Order: sequence, then structure tokens, then C-alpha cells
Amino acid sequence: MQPTGKHYVVSRPLYSEDAFDQEHKKTTRTRKTLLDHFKQYFTCDSKRAKNAALSLLPIISWVRIYQVKEWLLNDIVSGVSTGLVAVLQGLAYSLLASIPAWYGLFAAFFPVVVYFFLGTSRHISVGAFPVLSLMVGSVVTRLVPNNNTNITGLEGLTVEEQRAMVSASVTFLMGIFQLGMGVFQVGFIVIYLSDTLVSGFTTAAAVHILVSQLKFVLGLEVAGISGPLSIIYTLEKIFVQIEKTNICDLVTAIVVMVVVFIVKDLNDRYKSKLPVPIPIEVIMTVIACGISYAVNFQEKFGVEVVGKIPSGFEAPMAPNLKIFQMTVMDAFPMAIVGFAVAFSVAKTYAVKHDYLIDGNQELIAFGLSNIFGGAFKSLAASTALSRSAVQESTGGKTQIAGLLSAIIVMIVTLAIGFLLEPLQKSVLGAVVIINLKGMLMQVREVPYLWKKDRPDCVVWVGTCIASILLGLDLGLAVGLGIELLVVVFRTQFPRCSVLANIKGTDIYRDRKDYTSIYEPEGVKIFRIPSPIFFANIEFFRGKLVEAVGFNPLRILRKRNKALRTIKKLLKKGELKVTAKGLLPIGSSPIDESCDERNMEDLDRPSDYSDLPVQVNWNSQLPGNISVPQVPIHSLVLDFAAVSFLDMSAMKGLKAALREFIRVDVNIYIVACDMYVYEKLHGIGFFDDEVQTSMFYLTLHDAMLHILERHPDTTKVDSVHDKVPTDHTFDNLSNGRGSLRSRERRGSHNKEDNPETKF
Amino acid sequence: MQPTGKHYVVSRPLYSEDAFDQEHKKTTRTRKTLLDHFKQYFTCDSKRAKNAALSLLPIISWVRIYQVKEWLLNDIVSGVSTGLVAVLQGLAYSLLASIPAWYGLFAAFFPVVVYFFLGTSRHISVGAFPVLSLMVGSVVTRLVPNNNTNITGLEGLTVEEQRAMVSASVTFLMGIFQLGMGVFQVGFIVIYLSDTLVSGFTTAAAVHILVSQLKFVLGLEVAGISGPLSIIYTLEKIFVQIEKTNICDLVTAIVVMVVVFIVKDLNDRYKSKLPVPIPIEVIMTVIACGISYAVNFQEKFGVEVVGKIPSGFEAPMAPNLKIFQMTVMDAFPMAIVGFAVAFSVAKTYAVKHDYLIDGNQELIAFGLSNIFGGAFKSLAASTALSRSAVQESTGGKTQIAGLLSAIIVMIVTLAIGFLLEPLQKSVLGAVVIINLKGMLMQVREVPYLWKKDRPDCVVWVGTCIASILLGLDLGLAVGLGIELLVVVFRTQFPRCSVLANIKGTDIYRDRKDYTSIYEPEGVKIFRIPSPIFFANIEFFRGKLVEAVGFNPLRILRKRNKALRTIKKLLKKGELKVTAKGLLPIGSSPIDESCDERNMEDLDRPSDYSDLPVQVNWNSQLPGNISVPQVPIHSLVLDFAAVSFLDMSAMKGLKAALREFIRVDVNIYIVACDMYVYEKLHGIGFFDDEVQTSMFYLTLHDAMLHILERHPDTTKVDSVHDKVPTDHTFDNLSNGRGSLRSRERRGSHNKEDNPETKF
Repeated sequence: MQPTGKHYVVSRPLYSEDAFDQEHKKTTRTRKTLLDHFKQYFTCDSKRAKNAALSLLPIISWVRIYQVKEWLLNDIVSGVSTGLVAVLQGLAYSLLASIPAWYGLFAAFFPVVVYFFLGTSRHISVGAFPVLSLMVGSVVTRLVPNNNTNITGLEGLTVEEQRAMVSASVTFLMGIFQLGMGVFQVGFIVIYLSDTLVSGFTTAAAVHILVSQLKFVLGLEVAGISGPLSIIYTLEKIFVQIEKTNICDLVTAIVVMVVVFIVKDLNDRYKSKLPVPIPIEVIMTVIACGISYAVNFQEKFGVEVVGKIPSGFEAPMAPNLKIFQMTVMDAFPMAIVGFAVAFSVAKTYAVKHDYLIDGNQELIAFGLSNIFGGAFKSLAASTALSRSAVQESTGGKTQIAGLLSAIIVMIVTLAIGFLLEPLQKSVLGAVVIINLKGMLMQVREVPYLWKKDRPDCVVWVGTCIASILLGLDLGLAVGLGIELLVVVFRTQFPRCSVLANIKGTDIYRDRKDYTSIYEPEGVKIFRIPSPIFFANIEFFRGKLVEAVGFNPLRILRKRNKALRTIKKLLKKGELKVTAKGLLPIGSSPIDESCDERNMEDLDRPSDYSDLPVQVNWNSQLPGNISVPQVPIHSLVLDFAAVSFLDMSAMKGLKAALREFIRVDVNIYIVACDMYVYEKLHGIGFFDDEVQTSMFYLTLHDAMLHILERHPDTTKVDSVHDKVPTDHTFDNLSNGRGSLRSRERRGSHNKEDNPETKF
Repeated sequence: MQPTGKHYVVSRPLYSEDAFDQEHKKTTRTRKTLLDHFKQYFTCDSKRAKNAALSLLPIISWVRIYQVKEWLLNDIVSGVSTGLVAVLQGLAYSLLASIPAWYGLFAAFFPVVVYFFLGTSRHISVGAFPVLSLMVGSVVTRLVPNNNTNITGLEGLTVEEQRAMVSASVTFLMGIFQLGMGVFQVGFIVIYLSDTLVSGFTTAAAVHILVSQLKFVLGLEVAGISGPLSIIYTLEKIFVQIEKTNICDLVTAIVVMVVVFIVKDLNDRYKSKLPVPIPIEVIMTVIACGISYAVNFQEKFGVEVVGKIPSGFEAPMAPNLKIFQMTVMDAFPMAIVGFAVAFSVAKTYAVKHDYLIDGNQELIAFGLSNIFGGAFKSLAASTALSRSAVQESTGGKTQIAGLLSAIIVMIVTLAIGFLLEPLQKSVLGAVVIINLKGMLMQVREVPYLWKKDRPDCVVWVGTCIASILLGLDLGLAVGLGIELLVVVFRTQFPRCSVLANIKGTDIYRDRKDYTSIYEPEGVKIFRIPSPIFFANIEFFRGKLVEAVGFNPLRILRKRNKALRTIKKLLKKGELKVTAKGLLPIGSSPIDESCDERNMEDLDRPSDYSDLPVQVNWNSQLPGNISVPQVPIHSLVLDFAAVSFLDMSAMKGLKAALREFIRVDVNIYIVACDMYVYEKLHGIGFFDDEVQTSMFYLTLHDAMLHILERHPDTTKVDSVHDKVPTDHTFDNLSNGRGSLRSRERRGSHNKEDNPETKF
């Protein structure tokens, strides 16, 4: 690297946007209209039809390339492991949803079968997801509180049957939403769930889950509460009856939690040495189940157990439309959350194993999975990160593993489910709680975010607190609002700065940052460092007035008032036109008051039509008329960072520019994005006063142009004009030098003044 | 203008961001910390205390400069005119709020008195505002439906008394919100109500007002309905009983509407010739009142009249806390809407008459006005555009006019209110409806916006439809959501483009737009045309991969796999190191399959440590190992428009850059905003792989640097290197030429190669 040997040398014509357009031929690009897009989208030929069919049934693609020898064994091992975990989680998460345990098992069967055919991810394990189960639970307890019924069409059913119906219906509806979003290709909306938002949201969900499992761990009876602040009421109810804690439940839960915690830690620590992680949850559950059966905990200590599991599936049912009406506002966030989580997990594995997943097809797959599952009273399905990790880490290659896990679940459901009957609910609760570790640990992001990026921190904390206090659905909406607001906020109070030339370069930087700067008199360079739109256009106008140091509208009004006075005086003969300008006759003080009518006229461009001479506003005016002087003749706006502007911004900007133009300040807009420039054309930005000729390609182009137009205002560094400054790259003053020397000699080619070293 | 004479000539060292930093001394600026801001904010000295006191009582400032001789007459004329209008509007808008008419009169008295002392605007007329009154009305009808009571603490009161209590309490609460916002200086939040949003919202409000007045015009009895879709239910109820229309009411209303419409049109047309506009509404009301009394409409035709107006004010009351609880969610949007409208009207007049208004002080003024008003059972106060226009256009100079209008209202209330008793409600309804013309006409903006700016149009239509169907409060929230979403959406799918050099300049533009472009081989210039954040970082990464034509992660993995194979083969002795590179021994096909463990290692940087020779990935590899070639050696990212980035964007960008760096593509980031650059430092963007040396000042700096590093890849236009191309400003190839000639001759000063014409 020899930085001294590296030069930046440029010589080209000076370009305004107009001049550049004239010199450089543009290719005519035909932009597609909305209609073209529609046409293209709905055009159909055999190839597209085939592709569409294939993309709707992704199984065809991967079954074709299935390598039976190498993959099948892996898939079987993975399927069995995942199946065992799925049984356990199915039971546990049904507790979150406040429905009988076996409906959780269904969630590990029906949706998986549908996803097997329609899903594009080869590694996720479809089934119950704790956050989603909790959201179902809040609907269930709202619609079917412990005692009384208030849903028409469900009379005569037990509370448990009613709850299962509500859960199934809301799952069905959620499936419809997902399918709809997939069909209308709006899967992109999950983009709005940023990592920060999801992190805050899931942490809040973990808190909710923790609180909801406390009653099982303590063996207490707490009615489900829903709605804002429900978490506080639930905690209150628990603490009120804390002395009723079932010690047997509590001890079992603590033992399970401690053992699982330690073994999981060992699993992590000796990850590389273990062929598969120890399935400690499954082992502990089996042991706890055995002990509970042997000692007969249920009768001896009155613990709550999973209880009767009917062997076999239930007949499908039509969803309840009345429930649909009551749960529309709940099913939509569920559809979003369920899909968003599954998609993000699927994407992680897709990147890792280098295949593509299709967001909209995933929506269709999950939509149909949930519709199918809902019809068979299954709990809402998405994916659980922990279960998917088991499926992938034990070697699963395709959804064959998923299908096998479903078969394991089916076997448990049909044949050996009764073995789980003596299992304590507190064991399931303990397993759920211990799995929250990762989600709760996300809280460590807060100090990190606070240090790095405050607005992001606000999103995290805001979403988390709102979700804890208001409930998950409302909390998600509030979090989304905060997130969007933060984006706007980032551009709302931009750091506007006044730029100055860095001596000897064509570089312009914040004048406050550098010592060796050059600022020609009468020129202000103002940088707009963000897009302009309704939320910051007024702020920007204020900053602009602050930067130039005067309010152009006020000056325009004063000038126009002065003009009226001058014209009146001329009419009366109290002013005389001389070679030097206007001279007052007599010493009578000039009456400056002017009628306040036609106030609007004062904002119009100054009307010089009736005047015999030009008024020079910067010189002394006749009599005691005084108008503040305008200290600048040129204002350069750096538009490089203006990536878009809206109508409010356009109107505000135009008004601001017009005010400056009317007090004879030349405006230059530089480095404007081509699309913004085209857009300005489209929305009627230009007229007689605001013209395209103000656009220049670069700041330096505009600056050179200004210096040429106002050679008298550049007073500094005159030594550079005469003495060749050997190898100091003092180009700007050189630039001025060359411009002046050109004027002096009437020559316009740079070759003619070699002493300026270009 | 002689464009041929204008040259852009620059010669300076080539700058990377690091080199520039070294050469140019930066001033050390101490940025204020949050603490400093707090300190500054809470520092107190006598001057600040005085200023604070003055700003809390703006009346002191303007009373001091009050020019009694010139202003007082104007204020008196204006005050009387405004007072008459205020009486009429007070009566009319109380209909919107579903409360007895005289409480509307109170709104033109109590708040005005407080505002007189505290307000910073000299021209607005404080009092009832139709949209706000309607919002009060929807709360009133929700809490106190026609027949039954359900508010504790209000038992034993008549429906009308209860309604007045609800209206007063919600006004009080709204005042508290406004006062709170003023005290905490968060007045800026009204910025979020963009012109487009307000236009859509007020149009929807006009529709609601129109529908709510139909029953008065038709003389029907329709119970107030609130909540989503209430407008549809109301219309249904009206049309069901349309045959019960009171013809007398309808005819009176139509006559009033036609006359007012015509005279208002004349007022507009002969604006300049009339000293004051004809107060036709007041005239028609007085006439209608007289006729109704003379003919005794009430008994003859059963029309509904204003009825008994108690003369005098009512004793103040403590607001009802129970009502506070039930109306929190309604009072907040009312506080926002009320203030936003008043502030925007006040701002218009402040600009026109060239004085300053203070948003936070206005909030405090309106907050206390409404608290005071609410305590005296007044209707919620803001300002009505039409009434303020009367106050200003009849010559009002200060709030003395406002105070006088309040006195007129007081006189009417105390002394001559009974004269208004025979006034038909249908006349008031007609006056309200005819004043909706302007608001409804805003619908003409829709086609205009659709043509100019689709996203803005979406905001307008979305806000309007949501506000009509869901009600004003929910509609406003939905509109705000849409508006924020649209801002995000504008930057979400930015038009990324690949740039190319415009031949003979240092300008880079979209390669698809220009014909005469220069693109050196192996270099891609990618422009990011918007800020990057969570919603578009993935989109941008996708576009980047699309632009370069390969997926760097995939190539890295293939390379690392190939490396493993090569190392294995070297160990086995099946590969031999020769001068030409690696050569396979024997012709046995090389087994390319490699174990799938340690998948993560494949994403790490290639580990060449054990290899005896360098692997040239772009040449033929030994045996049948094949790795796709990387067609570029340099990737330039134009950051000029990246005005901010958040944590998600930082992480995504870093990951993307690392992938490219690991497959030996040099990354250059150019024209990065200084604050973004500093922020990248702050949030840990840089490490061993992603370094600050990739930042260059301008695109051309980076390009020249690349051309110097890769002289062999620039194959075009070699003729320029030898033959002096007279005066074609082919600077880029010249740039290369100079770089090469420098290398050839070992000379680094531009003076030494005059044939390159710099």
C-alpha cells in the first residue's frame, strides 16, 4: 500500500442534471405496469402449470431424490426419538391450553400427516408449540370459564368437552387464516415480526407459561383467567391459597426439575462426545409415571394425574360457527405467531442444509394442517424449537422422520396410552418450566441492546411488558405498533448538518467536525440525512431556517411591504430616481405603516413591474425603510440520503424552496436519487419557480457552478491563484483559480492554463 | 450559460475512510450525554425561571404590546361576530354530543376564559368542535343508552342529567391527558397525524356527523348507537321509519340549507368586495326561531325544539371516577384529536400573522381549559375552523376578541337564552350539515393521490373507511397503524440496482439506464437505495446474491468440502504436490463424499494451514473435485442512501459481508454517512474479518483502488493508454492509464505524464 502513489484525478464537464441528461443517451426502459404484472402472474402454460402443481406438493420433489440406503436408517432413528418427545410435549402443552391431555397428542399426529405431503421444510417437527398452546388456553378459559356455559350450540356438554370444542374451532379458524394468507401470497408480513420483537414477545410468553404452570407444580386449583392484567390476578389467586400446596406434587416437580436441569447441562457440555443427547425428560417421565403408579400417589396424596386417556381417535366434527365469531380477533394473531415461529425455525435448517423453503407454501401447508387437525379436535400446531432440534440432531433427513414420529404418537394413543394415566400433572408442569430456561434467558439481551441501540431496546422492553400485562394477543399488537413507531422515530429527528469543503478536495463534510475547511461566503450547504416525509418535514424546515440564519418568508414580506411603500412614495413624488438608485426628496420621515389588507399578497413573489430601477436589497434603502439583508446567495441541499419522499414532504419542501427563491437565493439540489427525481416529476414538484435546472449531479459540481457565477464572493486563499502550489492538491481553490483565469483571458479550455496544474 | 466552458477538474489523493482520517485533523466534539441533557434541562437560574413563568402565562407578553387604539375596535367587532356564531354552534354541536343544548353554550364560555390567560394563539376561537363533539356523543350514548342506567353513582338522575355528567367527566379526563402531555413536553406526537391521515379521518367524521344529523332533519327518534358498524345500524333504523318523517322539520331544514348554501357561495365569490361575510347562519336561525315562535310549530306540527334553557350556569361538580375508568380509552384519542386540530389551525394563523405558538403550552392551555370546563359541565373544547375564520377575518387581533365572544355567550346564557327555546332542532341540524361541505369535499383528494402517490392514497382511504365503519376512535388507531406501516413499506422493497461507470466521468448510474457505460470485469457495484432495518435486510441480501449471480455461502461450503477431500487424499498419498499444483496419483476416481458431521465447520473460513500449496479455486482442481468459480473479485456497496440501520440490519449485513469475504471477494463500502459509520463502530460491526479498511469516501475512490489492485482484469479501451485521446474526457480509462503508466515508469506524480491530460 503506497497511499502517496494513489491519486484521484478527474476531468470532465461540469454537470447539472439537465446537462448530463442531454449528453448521455438513456436507454428507454419500459417499466412494467400493474396490469403487466397481473398478466404475467396469471399467464398459464404447461410448464408453469407443472411447476405450480409441483410447488403445491413439495413431497414429489424430495421423494424423487430420496436416497433409501443412506437416509432411511437416519430417518427411523430420528422419527422414534422425536415421537417420544412429541408424546411428552403433547401431554404437557395441553395443560397450557386448559384442555384434556390427549388432545395434545392429536396435535402430534393429524397436522404432521398433512405437513408430510405439503411442507417444504424437511427438518421441522410439526405439532404443539407452547406459546401457541397458551394463546389457545386464554381463548378457552375466556369462552368456557370453570362453571357456567355461555356458548350456544354447546349446551349439554361437560366443561372439558366444551373446551375441546373451543380449542378445535379456534385451531380450524387459525388454519383458515393461514391458508388464506398462503393463497393470497402475503407470507411476507412475518417480516414485520423482527428478531427483537419476537425475543421480547417470547420472553413475555415464557413468563405467562411459568405462571400458568405454577398451579400444577403446587397442586393448586386456580380458575383460568383471561384478559389484560390476568397474570396479576392469577398470581394473586395462587398466593392467597399458597398454604394449600400439595407437598407431594411440589417435591416431585422439584426433583424432576433439578435432574432435568443437570442432565441437560451435561448434554450441552459433552455435546461433541455424545452420539445423541440423553432424552432425560422422557426418562424422568417414565420413572415418575412408574413411581406414581407403584405408590399410588393419586389416592395417597391427592395429586392431580393425567387420568383416563381414551384409546383411539375421535370422529371428526364440524367447527362451531358461533365460536368462530367470538374468536376471530384471537385466531388471527395465533395464525401469525404460529406461522412466524415455524417459518423461522424452518429457515434456520434450510440455510444449514442448503435447500429452499417457500413461505407461502408453508402457510398453505400449516393452514391445511390446522384445518385438518381442527376438524379432529387437535390442538393448534406449529413447531417447537426443542422438538425440531431433536429431530434434526438425531439425524432426520426428511419428513419421513416426522411421519414416523406421528406413527409413534398413534401407537401411544391407540395402544399404550393407559400407561400414562398415573402420571402427575406436576411432572408435566416441571418439564414445561425447565424448558423455559432459554426463552427466559433472552432477558440478557436488554442491557446489550441498551448499550448498542436504544430504540431496539425500547421495542424489546415495550413488547415484553405489554405482552406480560395485556396478554399475548394485545401485547403483540402493541409491540408491532411500537416497532413501526420506532422506525419512523429513527428518521424523525435526523441530525441535519451544515457541510463545508475539506480544503484541497472535492469532499464535503460536517463543518463542525474538521479544522481545515473552506466555506465560500454566501453559500450554505445543508445535508438532509434521511428520507423526508410527513413526520420530519417540519423539523427539517425549522433546521434549514436555523442553518441559514434567517426566515425567508419574513424577509419576503418585509421586502414586499417596503416595495409598496416605495411605490406609494414614487407616486406621491417623494422619491426620485437617480443614477445611484432611489433618493428621498425632503427629509420628512417616510410613513412605513401600510394597510394590513391583502396580507396574502405579501407572500407572493416581489412585483418589480412598476419600478423604474432595480432595487438592491443588500444596499441602503432610501429613507428609513429597513429590510433585513439576506446573507447568502446560494443554498445547496445534499439529497444523497433522501431515499423517498411523500406528498406532505413534497408540498413542504416546495413551499420552503419557493420562499428562498423569492428572496433571490439560488437553490441547488445535489446527488438526488434518480427514482426520487423521477418521482418529483411525477407528483408535480416543478413549476415556473421550482425548476429542474436546480439539480446538479454532485455537490462539487454545484459548488463549482456557484463559484463561477459569483466570482467576487470567494475571497480566501488568493495566493493559490497565482503561485503554482506544487503538488498540494488544493483543487477547489484551483478550481476557482481556473475559472477566474478563464474569465480573465476569455479562454475556456483547461489546457490553456497549465499553471493551475490540471 | 456556456456549458462547454464549464469543467469539473479534481486532483487529490485517493481516499479510503482510514486514509482520510489520518490526513485530515478532526476536531474533537464532545457530544452531550443523556445526563448532560437532563442537567441542562433542569438547571435553574433567575432568567430561566422568569422565562418559564412568562411562557406559562403568554398573556403577559401580548398584553404588554397591546395597541389599544388600533386593535381594540377590531377586537370588539370580531368578538361580537364570533360570539353570535359561537352561540349557534354551541347549540348545534351539543346535538352531536347527545346532550342538552345549553351545555354546548358552556363550551363557548368556560374554556375560552382559561385559554385567554394561557393560550399562545391570538386568533383561534376556542369552543366546541364538531368531530370532538361527535366523539363525546359516542361515549355518551354508549354509557347512557336511552332507557336504562348502568353507572353507579348516577342513580336517580334523569337520562339527560346522566348524559351531561358523562360528557363533563370525559371532558375533564381529556383535559387531564392534554395537561399531562403538555407537562411532559410530548406535544410533538401530533406530528404523526399527517395531513393525509387527518383528511381521511375528518372526511369519515363528516359522514358520521351527516348521519347523526339526519334524525333531526327528518324529525325522527333514533336511539344513539355506538361501537363498530354503528353507522350502518343507525342508517337502517332511520330508513325503517322513513315514513314517519316530520314534513315541517324537513321543509324548514331544506329551506335553511338552500339559503345558507347560496349565500355562502356568494360570500366566497364576492369576498374581496364585502367588508365582512354575511353571517347567514345566524340570520337564518333568528328568522327560523321567530317563525317557529309565531306559528307555534312545536304544537302545530310536533317538531322537536331546543326547549327550556335554564338561565345561568350550574354549580361546579367533581367528576365521576367510575366514568373515568370506563372512558379512558375514549378520552385519549379525544385529547389527541382535539389538540391536533386546534394546533394546526393555530399554526396556520401564526404563520400568517408572523408570531410563534408553543405546542406544549397550547397543550397545557387546552388541558386546563377542558379541566375547568369539565368541572362546570361544559362540552369538550377545541376549535372549529369556521368559527376561528370568523374571528380572524372580522379583524380579531388578540384573545381579547375571544374573551368578548365569551361575554356575548354569557349574556345569551344568562339573559336572553329563553328566546332560543322555540328554535327547531332541524334548523340546527341543517346548519351543521351545510357546514360539512368542505370536509366532505376532501374526498376529491383521492383520485389526485392515487395518481401521484399510491401509498398516501392507501392511508387516506384506509383511514376513512376504518373510521366510518369502526367508529372514530378505533378508526384513528387503525389509520395510524396503516400510516406507520406505509412508511415502513416505502423502504421495504427498495429498488436495488447495479451501477456502472458512465464513460468518461466519475459518475455511476444504474447500468440498465445508460448505453455508454464502462464495467470492469470482476467488479460489481451494488446500490442500496434506502435505510436498512429488520423489514428489508433479508430482501436486500437476496437481491445482492441475485446481483452477483452466486451464493457465497454455498461456494464456501463446497470449497471447504473440497479442502477436506484434498487433505484426506494428501494424507493417503493419493495426491502429489508438484510445481504446477496438486496432481492426482493413479486414475482411481476420488471419493468426494465426506462425513456430514461438523456441518458448522463448513461455514467457517477456509483453513489452508495444513496445505503445502495455495489452492487456486478458479483453476482446474485435481481429480473430479469441482467447485463453482467466483466470477468477481470486488464488490462495491454504495451506502449513500443508508440513513440508518438497526441491530437486525447490522447482524444481517455483517453475515452477508463475511460470506463474501470468506470466498475471497473484496468488499468496499462507499459514501457511508459519518453517523452511520460511527454507529457501526459503536454496535460492534467490525472484527478480524469485517474491517474499517473497506470504507472508501466515494465510489470512484474505491473503483480506482480496485483497478490498481487488479490491473489485469481491465481489458477494454487499451488504445487509450497509448494514444493521447485529445479532450475526450475519458477519465476512468485515463485513470487506469495513469495508474498503469505510473507502474511502468515507477513515477507517481501526475505532472510526469502530461499526455494523459490532467
